[in-house]
Amino acid sequence: MKFAVMGGDMRMISLAKMLEGAGHDVCTYALDAAPEGSVKLCGLSAAGAADGVDCVVLPLPVVRNEGGMLNAPMSAKSHDAAALLRELPKGTLVCAGKPDKALFEVAEDAGIKLVDYYAREELVALNALATAEGAISVMLRSSPTTIWESKVLVIGAGRIGKMLARRLRALGAYVSVSARKPWDKAYIREMGCTALDTGSLGNELGDFDTVINTVPAMVLDAERLEMLKPDVLLLDLASRPGGIDFDRARELKLKVIWAQGLPAETAPVAAGKIIMETVFNIIKEHRG
Amino acid sequence: MKFAVMGGDMRMISLAKMLEGAGHDVCTYALDAAPEGSVKLCGLSAAGAADGVDCVVLPLPVVRNEGGMLNAPMSAKSHDAAALLRELPKGTLVCAGKPDKALFEVAEDAGIKLVDYYAREELVALNALATAEGAISVMLRSSPTTIWESKVLVIGAGRIGKMLARRLRALGAYVSVSARKPWDKAYIREMGCTALDTGSLGNELGDFDTVINTVPAMVLDAERLEMLKPDVLLLDLASRPGGIDFDRARELKLKVIWAQGLPAETAPVAAGKIIMETVFNIIKEHRG
Amino acid sequence: MKFAVMGGDMRMISLAKMLEGAGHDVCTYALDAAPEGSVKLCGLSAAGAADGVDCVVLPLPVVRNEGGMLNAPMSAKSHDAAALLRELPKGTLVCAGKPDKALFEVAEDAGIKLVDYYAREELVALNALATAEGAISVMLRSSPTTIWESKVLVIGAGRIGKMLARRLRALGAYVSVSARKPWDKAYIREMGCTALDTGSLGNELGDFDTVINTVPAMVLDAERLEMLKPDVLLLDLASRPGGIDFDRARELKLKVIWAQGLPAETAPVAAGKIIMETVFNIIKEHRG
Amino acid sequence: MKFAVMGGDMRMISLAKMLEGAGHDVCTYALDAAPEGSVKLCGLSAAGAADGVDCVVLPLPVVRNEGGMLNAPMSAKSHDAAALLRELPKGTLVCAGKPDKALFEVAEDAGIKLVDYYAREELVALNALATAEGAISVMLRSSPTTIWESKVLVIGAGRIGKMLARRLRALGAYVSVSARKPWDKAYIREMGCTALDTGSLGNELGDFDTVINTVPAMVLDAERLEMLKPDVLLLDLASRPGGIDFDRARELKLKVIWAQGLPAETAPVAAGKIIMETVFNIIKEHRG
Repeated sequence: MKFAVMGGDMRMISLAKMLEGAGHDVCTYALDAAPEGSVKLCGLSAAGAADGVDCVVLPLPVVRNEGGMLNAPMSAKSHDAAALLRELPKGTLVCAGKPDKALFEVAEDAGIKLVDYYAREELVALNALATAEGAISVMLRSSPTTIWESKVLVIGAGRIGKMLARRLRALGAYVSVSARKPWDKAYIREMGCTALDTGSLGNELGDFDTVINTVPAMVLDAERLEMLKPDVLLLDLASRPGGIDFDRARELKLKVIWAQGLPAETAPVAAGKIIMETVFNIIKEHRG
Repeated sequence: MKFAVMGGDMRMISLAKMLEGAGHDVCTYALDAAPEGSVKLCGLSAAGAADGVDCVVLPLPVVRNEGGMLNAPMSAKSHDAAALLRELPKGTLVCAGKPDKALFEVAEDAGIKLVDYYAREELVALNALATAEGAISVMLRSSPTTIWESKVLVIGAGRIGKMLARRLRALGAYVSVSARKPWDKAYIREMGCTALDTGSLGNELGDFDTVINTVPAMVLDAERLEMLKPDVLLLDLASRPGGIDFDRARELKLKVIWAQGLPAETAPVAAGKIIMETVFNIIKEHRG
Repeated sequence: MKFAVMGGDMRMISLAKMLEGAGHDVCTYALDAAPEGSVKLCGLSAAGAADGVDCVVLPLPVVRNEGGMLNAPMSAKSHDAAALLRELPKGTLVCAGKPDKALFEVAEDAGIKLVDYYAREELVALNALATAEGAISVMLRSSPTTIWESKVLVIGAGRIGKMLARRLRALGAYVSVSARKPWDKAYIREMGCTALDTGSLGNELGDFDTVINTVPAMVLDAERLEMLKPDVLLLDLASRPGGIDFDRARELKLKVIWAQGLPAETAPVAAGKIIMETVFNIIKEHRG
Repeated sequence: MKFAVMGGDMRMISLAKMLEGAGHDVCTYALDAAPEGSVKLCGLSAAGAADGVDCVVLPLPVVRNEGGMLNAPMSAKSHDAAALLRELPKGTLVCAGKPDKALFEVAEDAGIKLVDYYAREELVALNALATAEGAISVMLRSSPTTIWESKVLVIGAGRIGKMLARRLRALGAYVSVSARKPWDKAYIREMGCTALDTGSLGNELGDFDTVINTVPAMVLDAERLEMLKPDVLLLDLASRPGGIDFDRARELKLKVIWAQGLPAETAPVAAGKIIMETVFNIIKEHRG
């Protein structure tokens, strides 16, 4: 098959290399400032790179900032995402991460088959797993003690929370997970962890060596931060604005790490592979 | 609190005893043929037993047969479920397992607050877990070899399939799980198992020492049964009609176990406890 | 290769069948009362069966009773083990389980190369594992509740104790292991279990739903038995005389299971395979 | 109790702080250049610091270089270990890591009760565990992919090898472990890993994404290094001279990490706690 890979970070570069390694034909675009030798540049224009491809792969997220510019940290230039779509040959299949409504409208208007790979559960699931492993990497490098026999609280029992809790327990931590719903608490117990109630977290907060937030809501507010051990390690995996009162945490001199951009930072090759596998699933389904 | 426990099997008896052990007041009804000493009978009528209670607990499933009779294998008499509901004091909270639409209508008509505890995810989740452990019990007692280093296929990656696969892997089996959707296959890989496609199961079936079906559809049909090892152990956990062509399996002299009634059979005390915990959640929510 | 398999139980029959299945030539002796069709009988005499073989395999244990008779529950006749050895061709390699000193002397005198496969660590290790899994099988079939969330005490941190504790924890039990030495307690903690001191087990005994003894010494004496929960499940895996005061346990109406003969009872095929693998290792080493 | 803590790195500082936190009286010596506020200095001389203590704790290893100088990277001065022992009050209990024969002779001559805590299995076991977790930390920070679904070879099935293999499998890696003895291979299989033969490692080396050596012998020589994937990650946990031909690896541009000083580097607090617990065991035994 033939692919065009446009924009993105190390994940896109890994993806391009894996596609090549698997015998596919790959063109890149908007990766002109990538480390030398890492990818083959073949198109001077997006249209040229996309000529005759089975699929164009755009990054996750496809657009970085307000102005609708392509997320392309490894390009020396700026690229308007909508303009780029309009340049592509009609009928092209384009897989992109989290395109917004406006971009879908542009695609429809331009006769492009735009698919959001981040809407695919298999990508989200494996990305959550790679994020959970990335959180363990951050914990290990940030803590002067072992995960083994440490007391860890994971706030939230979503995908990442569950996958993380299971791994921490396997490494020998005493793991509590807080959630709000009875069913989540059932799954927490199934994993061999202690179920706490996120809404009523109180003095037991002082028991934990590490607290990891996965919930995009203010859980560790000023009041709760004061219940923590002074030498606790706080990790926030939730997207902005996160779930920790960072200002108050700083005043209390707590050790806080806002671990954003996992797993792109800790495991770009795995993250690229997960995108690649999902793109293959999408192509397969499009062909029936 | 005060409870009435009516009908059911060893799970209801365990539930009654645990409630008593926790200091609650418990009356039973339609458990008149229970093993001596196991429960205290206190009501000659359903109305009498339910007098002043915080909650009436009915069995899972609440009705056993076509005619709408209460599931009461430990009563010497027959009890019409609808009639029983009508006897209870107006306003009584009744928790029952899988009541049908007709019974809900009776309850509304009679001014009874009927709640289906089997519609609660926390019960279904923990019941699935107890079923998975029950399946391991059946496997261990039915197989002349170890789970360790055996090759097991779990068909279906629903709740039971996942919980079972995880435990089998922890015991050292080589576990494959078959599913249909890309997302299920992602979760199967996350667990460290091999993902297969249920739709295209073929000659690889001959690799497995044990095959466990969890899908309520004909998966192991006559054709596929012939691909299995002659000494394979087949376990069907799916409800009637199950997913195995039993007639053909018998002709082929395959060892098939239709493991129904788990976990009531393998772990009635745990199953009773799970119902009890869910009943407490329901009461709590009803009181706001 | 050519093998003779003599005496023993279902393990020996499994071993004979696996050897045949792998393309070897197999003769059996002292298995004349085995279930029909399970093994091929080919020698009227031990000498005939052993003629030209690479190895004779004798059972585990090789001798059952005081009088030195071959352990041959599947033979209609009695066989003197020493006489049998003397019948074999000089120079024959004989692998047997736990031969005593007297039998080694007979072998030396008769020019037989007798090797005790039970002295091999790889057999003992995998046998311990199959025993641990067998203990889980016995627990599951004997208990009305789940291993998940139950409180289990394993007495002794030897091979079986450790392998059992690890599996019970993986199934979601709260596992304590008692030992005497600081180093064993370190390994218990490494596994994520709670370390207790066997010598000072006291009132905490009342916490456990299941207590499994692996130590061949009187640990659960009359005094300690009274500290247990009335509905505890007691399992004794230690050889005679075991570690539980059975008389006192009976008086207290405690549920006690003396689980002897694991894994021969719960997993004869796996146990036979483990013996077979060890025999292959022995043959390989004998040939240099 | 009263303790003197002399020399050493962050592990000794953690140990001193934990002893204080537990209510003990602690004096330090040869930690004069420790980060401000981390420890209380109370003795101008070793004799002064050790006055009236229950135990003097020296670092692991107690002596760093050829000349017999105390391992004291956090002291601005040099300290002769033998001279230091001679200064201490007669009868003092001194716990030290790996003292050599000469130091034991000095101790005996000076009337000092010198104990090697590194000769204690409980310390070695938990230190191995912390080392295994440290190796995972190094792997995670050095690899652009996940441990999950990666192919890992652990060379050697000693304490560290086993504990590491078990954790890697729990994180979802495909784990092979190589060993030489049949019994080690049995334990490798018990853990659910693939057993390979260290002596005959050949072309299968090309399958692995990560290879971790734990054996203090030249296993990955020039010839074997050429069989590896070009992008393999090599980790050597063995003490000098290690088990990898580093020069050849460099020529082949392989990514090699010589992970020495684990867990002191990755988990000094845990490592200090392990020493502390062992010191308590030693004191207890000395008092009978």
